[in-house]
Order: sequence, then structure tokens, then C-alpha cells
Amino acid sequence: MRKIVISTGGGDAPGLNAVIFAVVNSATRRGWEVYGSRQGYKGLLDHDYLVRLTPEDVEGITPTGGTILGSTNKGNPFHMPVHNLAGEKSIIDISDKILDNFNRLGFDCHIAVGGDGSLEIAHNFAQKGMPVIGVPKTIDNDLEATDRTFGFDTAVATATEALDKLHSTAKSHDRVMVVEVMGRESGWIALYSGISGGADVILIPEIPFNMDAVCKKITENELHDKDYSIVVVAEGAKAEGGTVIDRGKGEEGREEVVLGGIGEWVANEIRQCIGKDTRSLVLGHLQRGGSPTTYDRLLALRFGAAAVRMADAGVFDHMVASMPPKMISVPLEDAIRTRKKIDLNGDKVLTAREIGICLGDVD
Amino acid sequence: MRKIVISTGGGDAPGLNAVIFAVVNSATRRGWEVYGSRQGYKGLLDHDYLVRLTPEDVEGITPTGGTILGSTNKGNPFHMPVHNLAGEKSIIDISDKILDNFNRLGFDCHIAVGGDGSLEIAHNFAQKGMPVIGVPKTIDNDLEATDRTFGFDTAVATATEALDKLHSTAKSHDRVMVVEVMGRESGWIALYSGISGGADVILIPEIPFNMDAVCKKITENELHDKDYSIVVVAEGAKAEGGTVIDRGKGEEGREEVVLGGIGEWVANEIRQCIGKDTRSLVLGHLQRGGSPTTYDRLLALRFGAAAVRMADAGVFDHMVASMPPKMISVPLEDAIRTRKKIDLNGDKVLTAREIGICLGDVD
Amino acid sequence: MRKIVISTGGGDAPGLNAVIFAVVNSATRRGWEVYGSRQGYKGLLDHDYLVRLTPEDVEGITPTGGTILGSTNKGNPFHMPVHNLAGEKSIIDISDKILDNFNRLGFDCHIAVGGDGSLEIAHNFAQKGMPVIGVPKTIDNDLEATDRTFGFDTAVATATEALDKLHSTAKSHDRVMVVEVMGRESGWIALYSGISGGADVILIPEIPFNMDAVCKKITENELHDKDYSIVVVAEGAKAEGGTVIDRGKGEEGREEVVLGGIGEWVANEIRQCIGKDTRSLVLGHLQRGGSPTTYDRLLALRFGAAAVRMADAGVFDHMVASMPPKMISVPLEDAIRTRKKIDLNGDKVLTAREIGICLGDVD
Amino acid sequence: MRKIVISTGGGDAPGLNAVIFAVVNSATRRGWEVYGSRQGYKGLLDHDYLVRLTPEDVEGITPTGGTILGSTNKGNPFHMPVHNLAGEKSIIDISDKILDNFNRLGFDCHIAVGGDGSLEIAHNFAQKGMPVIGVPKTIDNDLEATDRTFGFDTAVATATEALDKLHSTAKSHDRVMVVEVMGRESGWIALYSGISGGADVILIPEIPFNMDAVCKKITENELHDKDYSIVVVAEGAKAEGGTVIDRGKGEEGREEVVLGGIGEWVANEIRQCIGKDTRSLVLGHLQRGGSPTTYDRLLALRFGAAAVRMADAGVFDHMVASMPPKMISVPLEDAIRTRKKIDLNGDKVLTAREIGICLGDVD
Repeated sequence: MRKIVISTGGGDAPGLNAVIFAVVNSATRRGWEVYGSRQGYKGLLDHDYLVRLTPEDVEGITPTGGTILGSTNKGNPFHMPVHNLAGEKSIIDISDKILDNFNRLGFDCHIAVGGDGSLEIAHNFAQKGMPVIGVPKTIDNDLEATDRTFGFDTAVATATEALDKLHSTAKSHDRVMVVEVMGRESGWIALYSGISGGADVILIPEIPFNMDAVCKKITENELHDKDYSIVVVAEGAKAEGGTVIDRGKGEEGREEVVLGGIGEWVANEIRQCIGKDTRSLVLGHLQRGGSPTTYDRLLALRFGAAAVRMADAGVFDHMVASMPPKMISVPLEDAIRTRKKIDLNGDKVLTAREIGICLGDVD
Repeated sequence: MRKIVISTGGGDAPGLNAVIFAVVNSATRRGWEVYGSRQGYKGLLDHDYLVRLTPEDVEGITPTGGTILGSTNKGNPFHMPVHNLAGEKSIIDISDKILDNFNRLGFDCHIAVGGDGSLEIAHNFAQKGMPVIGVPKTIDNDLEATDRTFGFDTAVATATEALDKLHSTAKSHDRVMVVEVMGRESGWIALYSGISGGADVILIPEIPFNMDAVCKKITENELHDKDYSIVVVAEGAKAEGGTVIDRGKGEEGREEVVLGGIGEWVANEIRQCIGKDTRSLVLGHLQRGGSPTTYDRLLALRFGAAAVRMADAGVFDHMVASMPPKMISVPLEDAIRTRKKIDLNGDKVLTAREIGICLGDVD
Repeated sequence: MRKIVISTGGGDAPGLNAVIFAVVNSATRRGWEVYGSRQGYKGLLDHDYLVRLTPEDVEGITPTGGTILGSTNKGNPFHMPVHNLAGEKSIIDISDKILDNFNRLGFDCHIAVGGDGSLEIAHNFAQKGMPVIGVPKTIDNDLEATDRTFGFDTAVATATEALDKLHSTAKSHDRVMVVEVMGRESGWIALYSGISGGADVILIPEIPFNMDAVCKKITENELHDKDYSIVVVAEGAKAEGGTVIDRGKGEEGREEVVLGGIGEWVANEIRQCIGKDTRSLVLGHLQRGGSPTTYDRLLALRFGAAAVRMADAGVFDHMVASMPPKMISVPLEDAIRTRKKIDLNGDKVLTAREIGICLGDVD
Repeated sequence: MRKIVISTGGGDAPGLNAVIFAVVNSATRRGWEVYGSRQGYKGLLDHDYLVRLTPEDVEGITPTGGTILGSTNKGNPFHMPVHNLAGEKSIIDISDKILDNFNRLGFDCHIAVGGDGSLEIAHNFAQKGMPVIGVPKTIDNDLEATDRTFGFDTAVATATEALDKLHSTAKSHDRVMVVEVMGRESGWIALYSGISGGADVILIPEIPFNMDAVCKKITENELHDKDYSIVVVAEGAKAEGGTVIDRGKGEEGREEVVLGGIGEWVANEIRQCIGKDTRSLVLGHLQRGGSPTTYDRLLALRFGAAAVRMADAGVFDHMVASMPPKMISVPLEDAIRTRKKIDLNGDKVLTAREIGICLGDVD
């Protein structure tokens, strides 16, 4: 091993720079050279986007949000849309060109940090012979293969802090506040922030919700002189019987600030059902940004160091994963397949119910 | 002076509890008794809502959000809606009853903390003979009579922190992020948070905006390799020529999370105009909550102490106001009349322009 | 089960109020009555210190620091110092009186939240027949029986935030900053905050340190144009060969702000060894205070709910413990015996070394 | 005007990067070139330390602590210590060399950001003919010539946050906590943070303190069932009658972490006087670091923009100053002479006394 390249792909997640910091430092200490490919794979297409990274270059980046490797959303090299002079769009495959450049530049390993889309691309490159190591990145914490992903603790902290702020206002105004948080397939952020932030109701994709149960909880609060309620809704929550929320779909699907999103829908239902002043708020991108928490920094640094260890051992086409107290490697192919759902019989769900949080079902 | 009562009215604002802390402590040290009227004037109607407040009772409340005197939004005693047994609504005036109770309970002064609505009610009570002192409360900072109001610095800090978080995401995704902040009549929160939070464009009610100027700024950014932009929009900003945004209007009007609000409208225009991935976010109630900043705590404590000083001096039907480095008293009648607009020739606007922020007009 | 009492003992830890919140809510939902014993066991001696706790009483306490049950440090009921009229001190055992009161008041269970001292007392009461359940509390995270303790993540976050702040000053002044953090027997806070906060050197009790190795690391930094360094020292760190630091010992031993503590000693050594401007700082009690992080809130709430579950199942003389993803019960006797040391071959230590942090030994 | 250089000197202060951001952006928009001199004046001695600064280079630096121009503490060019080959030290004047370089490089203006030491050097260069503009920098807020200096609000916020954290611990342990904050000549940080952070006692250099008054306040607290107290001490506070605290003096004097400092001295006195468990803590450098508050960012950006305006107008040998709502210029010579003391008859001191804070004197 002499020369490696690192790239970051997909959406923003707090901790990306900590991964880069750890990769650069632990690889450099092994005597290797490290390069960063800016804007996804662009550094492997255009020399101007390939940067040498030394420990000096990455000094102090661990606490920062975003990624020093710039915009991460530059499309799939295997299906790259291009426009000809007449403005017509076609799809081309530029993966060979990238692989050629990778080899010509003498790289021995590519560490690809990214979400499931980016990791699938990484796996495809591995199939073509590129020695690739994946580092998982999703603030949703919904990968079965790893106990935790970095960015999740920060997203939960941001959502919880928002709930803390909304409490005093909801209380001062005798209101119901409905807060929509991220979580299209699973309700990790909703459940964790809702419990920590003192929510009265938490609605998650894993449990189709019943509006009567929700309204009953809010009414019960009033009977106990608690004239306000906080409702946390994961963006992927669905009403029982399949109320379909018509929502736009952005390039990546999930982050769209949705007109008529589920949070607003729930707020309307509550307003109609119990005639109470009810407002809704979409936290949206706030959950992706900011300085990573200590927890996420430590996890991201460990991911980075472990990826270099894997490179050293020659374990390619695999992804780093956390299995406390260890770091392990799992085949990329398996890793990107399985999503992690909330265990409805687990201790966190049980705790939520026991401390009186309504999860939208009839208990 | 022997016995005073304090009430908080109108929307939530960080610093309310600091005012209460200072009133209780400085009145108690003068040998007075202090009572709190919970839920606006309700404590002067119903004994259960009147609470004795000693320094022990208010220990440690300064850093907390909300108000220990509970919900603040209970209507105007001079125009109180009531429903008879048949469910018919009528408006009655219960101000005499409140005044009678006030006198019967032997109160010598009422310190009313509130926004312009609450201060007008306080003034009406003063006209009827109640010895009232007002403490201004608006997170919008738009009262001409006082240099600053508490809650504003906290609201600006919350909005700035949100902008900090959105920067990394906007950058990672090459996006335009449009953030709608509070400010129906004037753009104080937008201007302060936009400058501090590194916005590229700030749109305020004081300057009708031109979409061409906005889009030009975003396009210029791209020419300088800055492929993302942050746009801050005050909820009361308007396009040149009077584009009317159809927005719902809540009980208080202003805090509605607006479908088709101005932030979203601007985002749509940008998307259409330059075809760039553009998202919008409404900060809404987040700006009202949370622990007050040091600045707001100090200001609120000084307001409270000054109100007691005014009570001691017998200066009623007046409001506390800040005129650095002093606290002064201004007649309530004058105070609630005049709104403070941003000085378009002032140093902050000049600074914004000089460091390259587009204010929506053509320069 | 009909009536339970909860007490908090030992030093402050962020998350105590979250435990109380969960206990009160989950017990109340089971139809039980909950009481709080203020000031340790004082509520079981003096009626004025015994308070009824309903969900209304504990609303909103989860995010707050400290404990609503007041001062926690009131001595051991089995060895209580008293003074007679002549001022002479003697030691008496008031445990029988407490047990009598407990029974006479009709309590069915005592949930004791505390550190090893408090848990040992709880165990002693269990031996005498009191149905006791322990909830572990130590910000040091050094209990073998449980994977994590609440308060630790908050302490690490506070220490990391301090390191973040010191970076810019150390850099601006070309200085070495030595920061002493808590950790008498083990270096958990030092290791976690040091890695996350970008320390150059981390000294922990588990690894006797060599000043030459420390100074070599700082000198190497300068060779790489990094003219400043950050050194994190656990208060219980020791130099190789047994340099004994003469430090005062307070009532509890550990929290004393130490004159001539290990941080200052290390700073002096660095100053003498390489003649560099070196300052030291003791974080001390800052690590114990403040609002719990989301992580600690969730953990503390789960501890509280699990303790009530144990009460329901009649599992006494045991302590709640976290064994992810479950909560389990362990006998109090075993739980308080074994301290958890950092695994020197574990992934966190490995990561620290790989990213270039000096752990004080010669590698 | 075509080409300007900016330098930062003296200790770290949150907001330095915001000044640089504003200078670079507003100068560039005027069509000027901006350079940064790294490490004080070093960029005017050694080409390697002179960097071109464009808006791209300073993008995103406003929220960051420290200064991108590196170490600020490199001595006085008029009295520069040098060592010959024999190791003997002598003092030389390198100001001519700097001025020559400045002129040879074609600079039209030097914007010097710094404390009183740096501003005096700037004035000396102005006397020699260099067109210099000063920007004041002190977190102590003790310059008579300007209403406020950036960094102060952040330092107060850091100190207040520390007090918030110490409250719960002091309360849980029935302790007196003594916190030493910055302020050698005046007690601005102590007064502002002490009032905002709920201190019981605030000791400042402007009021020689009486230990009996301090202990009386703490004892009174206990009579009101408040068994803990928080004491804030400015590092320059002195006991009545001139108790001299023997403290070391560092290069800059003020920031030394002092053995036997005034905080510890006060803690000892309290311990002896009323036999209460009393601990002390020195906040030290924590007050200098971290991301600037919104208030400080706005002020620092305005300072930077105003400095460029002064350059444009050719107003040299002057310093930017804040006189709300304006920015003004004051002659450097006058500006660095007069320190601003706390007005003992002002509203803040009055408020402190009225809400029951002991200021160390006998009232």
C-alpha cells in the first residue's frame, strides 16, 4: 500500500470530516500518501479536483460540519446524464474512465464514504476490480449491518433541542405543536428525540397510526391540566388504513420540504378533531448540519481509522461496521441490502409506552 | 407600597422569567409582597390562579424559557368572548370585576409584561384607575420607544445557529436554501441573523424586493465557484410591485406556519428563474423558545428591577424602556403607538451591502 | 405494589431528573403512588422532606441538571456523625429508624439512585429487609456491571467543548494547553474527550506516562509547523516510576480543585523540558453540571422505567444495568464491587494511537 | 487605494475572523487587493507569511474562533529581542525594515486588529508614515473610546454558561462555588456574567471587597434555606485594605493560571470564616475561545466594514469605534490611553444590588 484516495458521496452528515481526519492521519502514519477526490468521483476524472491531503491539511476539521471534499451529489458514474450540443440528454457510463485514471495514478485503494447509493456504486467499482472500502453514512441509523452510523446522534440532538425550545412556546400558548422529523423508512430519529425531548405522541413508519388514539392522548393531557402537547412525526409515518400523503419527490426523494406533508396532515386532523390551536413545523435540513456531537466524532474517527486498517489488511469490497465494542468488516453487497427497523418489542419502545408516550396505536 | 401583582401576556419570549425574577427579588428586598397572576389576568378573577411569589419560589428561573405564570394568551378582559348555555357567543367586559378584585385584594401596583396588545389593555386599566406599569415584550425588537426588547437577541441567535447548520448542507448539495424568519412589519431578525449567519441575500419588509436582483446574486456566486447560496426572508417581505402572498392568518396572525408563505414563494421563483435545486424552511416557533442569551437575561433583569423602581416612585401608566446606558419610563399611550423600522441608511444596512449581501433591490 | 419512594444520593450527575421523571410516570401509570425523599434519606426521617410526586410535579424536568430532590450528600445512615450539646462528635446508626419509618409509611419499594457509596448503603438496607432497587449513577462510566452510566456522555461533551474552545487560543498563542479532567481510577472521560476534541496527548490512569514521550510528541508537532499542542490529563494519571502528586482530599476525595494537581505538574514538566509557554486548566465541577445530552436523557429514562419494571417483578437488592440492547438486573452486592478499566487493546485506544495521539507511553 | 494588508495581534478573541471576512469582502468589492500578514507583522518581513485573501479564501470563516492569520503573539517590532550565535540576547528595532517592505510591496493601507499593545505599535508605525487603521480587540470591553468590543459578549456567554452548570452541582452538594473570571483592571465580565448567571456575590476591581460582607451574604442565603452560593470574582478584585495576592505574571500578564489567585484566596477565607464546603474554579482561557456569539459577529463585521470605509476616506492613524447606532473614528493616540471602568452608579450595578447580589461592600 502506498497511495490511497478518499471520496465522500450522497447527502451531508455530521462526522464526514472526522472520517477524513482519521483516514489521513492513520494512513500518513503508515507512510502512505492520501488524496481526496472532490465532488464525489470528479477527482478521478479531472486533475483539478484531486487534492493531496496531509495531516496539516486536515488539522482542526473534526468538529466541523459538511465535508472538505465539497459537493457530494454529482450523480452515478455508471449512469451519468450528459447533454449534447443540441441539448439532448443521454446516459453514459464513465466508470471505465474513472477506473483507468485510478490505476494510471497509481492508487492502491479507494475509501468511499457514502449512503446506500454511493456504497452500491462503490461495490460496482469493486466488481470491476477497484480495491474499494466503504464507510457507511446515513443520519437515519437504518443500516442493519452496523450498530450505529455517525450523524445520527447529532440529528437526534438537533431535533431534541428543537423540542426543548417548542415546549415553552406550546405551554405559553396552550397549543399542540406537531414536529416533522426525518425518517422515511424507519422512525429512529423520531423515537429517540421524542423520548428525550418530552413528546406526548411519537408517530413512526413502523407503527401505522390511529388518529383517535392520538387525539385521545391530547385530550387526556388536558384532563391533567396539561393544556399543551408535543407530537413528533417521522416523515414516513402513515395513518392506519393507508392514508396516502401526496408529496413531491426531490432528486434524492427524502429531503423535500413537503407541501401537505405528514406533519401538516396530522396537525389538520388534530385541529378538526379536538378544535385546538395546532401548529406544525418541519425540521428538514437542520437535522443534517452542524458540528458533530462528541458521540458522532468518536464513531466517525473510529470508522476512518478502521477503514485504513482494512486497507492495510487488503480487505476490499467490504464496509466498516460497528459491532460494540469492536469494528468489523462486512461485504458491501450484503451491507447495502438490509434496512434496520425499530424493534417494537425492544426496551426503547417499551420505555416510551411506560412513561406515557402515545405511539399512535391503541394500547 | 406594600403589595404588587405581576402578570405576563401575549406570546412567548425568552427572558419573561428573568423579568419575574428581578421583580420578585427587588420588591421583596423593599419589604413588599409579590403575587403572580397566572394565565394573564386570570389570577385577578379566580383565587386559584393567584400565587404568592418569594425569592425562594423564583430561585433559578432566570435561564429558563417560557413563563412560570403559565399560558399567556387568554384574551382581552375588555372584550371577552363568552358562550351561553345555548352555545351562542357574546362579548362582555370583565374589566370592572378585575379592577374590583385588584382593589379588594389590596394591591398597590400591577406590573404587566406583554406585547403591544397586552400593553394596550394595561393602559386601558390605567385609565380606569389601576396603578399599572408596563414591561415591553416582543422578540421582533420593533418598538420605537425602547432601544431593545428582550427575546430579540435569543431569536437572532437561534436563527443564526440554523443558518450555520444549513451552510454545510447547502454547500454539500450545491443548493439554494431559503429560510423564512419572523418579522411581519420589520426585518430586524432577518437582517441581524442574515449578516451574522453569512447569508447571500436578505429580504426585509422595509425593502420591496426584485427577483431579478436576487437571482443575479445567486448566479454571481456561481461565477465565483460558490455553487450554493443562503437566502433569508422575513415573513413580511414583499416583492416589488406588490406580489401578494396568500397566507392563512391565525389567532395572532403572525406565527402561522404558512402554506405558500413568502419563503416558499421565493424558493419557487429561484427554481424557475435559474433552474437550481432550491429548498425552503420556515423557522417558526423555534425562534420564540429556549433559554435566553446572556444579553437577554441581563436586559430582562434590568427591565424587572426598573419596573419596581418605577413602582416605588409611583410612576404609573408608563412603560420601562431602555435608552443606553439608562432605563427610562415612557407613557404607555405613546409607547404602544410607534413601530421601529430598520434605518435603511444606517450602519448595519451599509455593512450588509459592503460585504456583498444582496438586499433585494437593484444597487 | 402500591407505594414507592425514590431518593438520589452522592454527587451531581446530568440525568438524575430524567430518572425521576421516568420512575414517577411509569409507576403512576401502574396505579402506584410515588414519593420523593429529599436530601438522601432525610425524607424517611422527617416528614417535611418527603414529597408526593405526580406526573404534573415532574413535567419538564428531563432536560434539567441537578436533582429536584435537593442536596444529595447527607452522610451514611449507618454511620451518621452527630454532635452532643457539649459539641462532642459521635457516630450513630439511624438505619433502624429509617426502616421503621419506611414500613410505617407503608412503602413497598425504595428506588435508590446513587454512586457506589449510595448503592452500598442501599444494599445494607436490603440486607435489613428493605425492598431496595438501585440505579447506578457515576459520570465516570467506570462500573463493570453496566455498559454505560448516564451523565458520562454529558461530561465528555462538556470536556470536548472546552477543548474546542482552547484550540483557537492555543493556536493563536503558540502554546501548550494542559487540561485536567475527571477520572481518578480510570481515564474514560480523558480518552473520549481527548480523541473527539483533537488532543495531541492523552494521559490516563491505566497507562503510567513517560514525560519524554509527551515532550517528544509536542516537539514533533513543531517540526510539522503545528506550534501548539493540547494535552488532556485524567486527574488520576500517574507518571512512570510513581511520581506522587501531593493533593488535598475533600470529603468525597475526587473533586477537589487541586493545588499542584497532576495537570499543573505536567504543565511544569513541559515548560522545563522544552521551554514552551504552557498553561494548565482544571475543568473540575463544570463536568458534573448542565442539561443532559440526548444520549444521557434516553439512558436515564430507560434506567428509571426499568427500575419500576423490576419493582413490579419484585426483583429487590438488585441494580438496573444496561447491556445493549437490553436492560438487565444485577445483584447490588456484585455491582458495586468491580470497576471498569479501559481496555488497552480495544478499538478506541487503537484508534487514538493510529490517528497520532500520544498516550504517554513509548511506542 | 489599490492594495491593503491586514494583520491580527495580541491575544485570541472571538470575532477576529469576522473582521477579516468583512475587510476582505468590502475591500474586494471596491476593487482593491487584500493581503493578510500572518503572525503579526511577519508577513511584512518574510514573503512566505504574506497571503493573498479573496472572498473565496474567507468564505465561511465568520463563525470560527481564533484567527486565520495564525499566531498573534510575535513581539514588538520596535523592541524585538534577538539572540546572537553566542546565545546573547539584545533588543533591535526592525520597524524600518517592515516599513520599507510595506512601501516596496505597494501597500496603500494597513489595517491592524489588536489590543492596546498592538494598537500602540500601529500608532508608532503611523508616526513613521505608514497609513494605519486600527481595529480594537479586547474581550475585556475596557476601552473608553468604544461602546463595545467584540469578543466580550462571547466571553460573558461562556462564563454565564459555566455558572449555569455550577448551579446544579453547588445545590446538590450544599456548596459555595467561587469562580474566577477575567478582568484585571475592571470587572465587566464578572458583573455581566454574575448578574446573568445568578451569582450571589460578585467581586470586581472597582469595589475593594470586605470578606465580612461576603460571608454575611452566604449566611443569609442559608437562613432562607438556600444552602449553596455562587461567588464570581474578577481576577483583579482586591480585598479592602489591600490584601495583596502573590501571583505569577506571564508574558502578557493577565492570563496566567494563578496558584494562590484571588478566587482561591476568597474560597479559603469563606471556608475559614463559615466552615462551609467551598470550592474554586478558574475559567481562564475558556473565555477567549469558541465561536463568536451573534452579537460579536455582527459587531466584528461592522468594525471590519467601517475600517475599509475609513481607508477609502483616507482616515489614518485612527481606530474604528462603536458609538451606537454609528461607527466612528477616533485618533489611535487617544484611544489606547483611557480604560473604561464600570460606572458604580450605573443601572447595571443598581440592578445587581436591587436583586440582592452582594458586591463585596457594606451596604
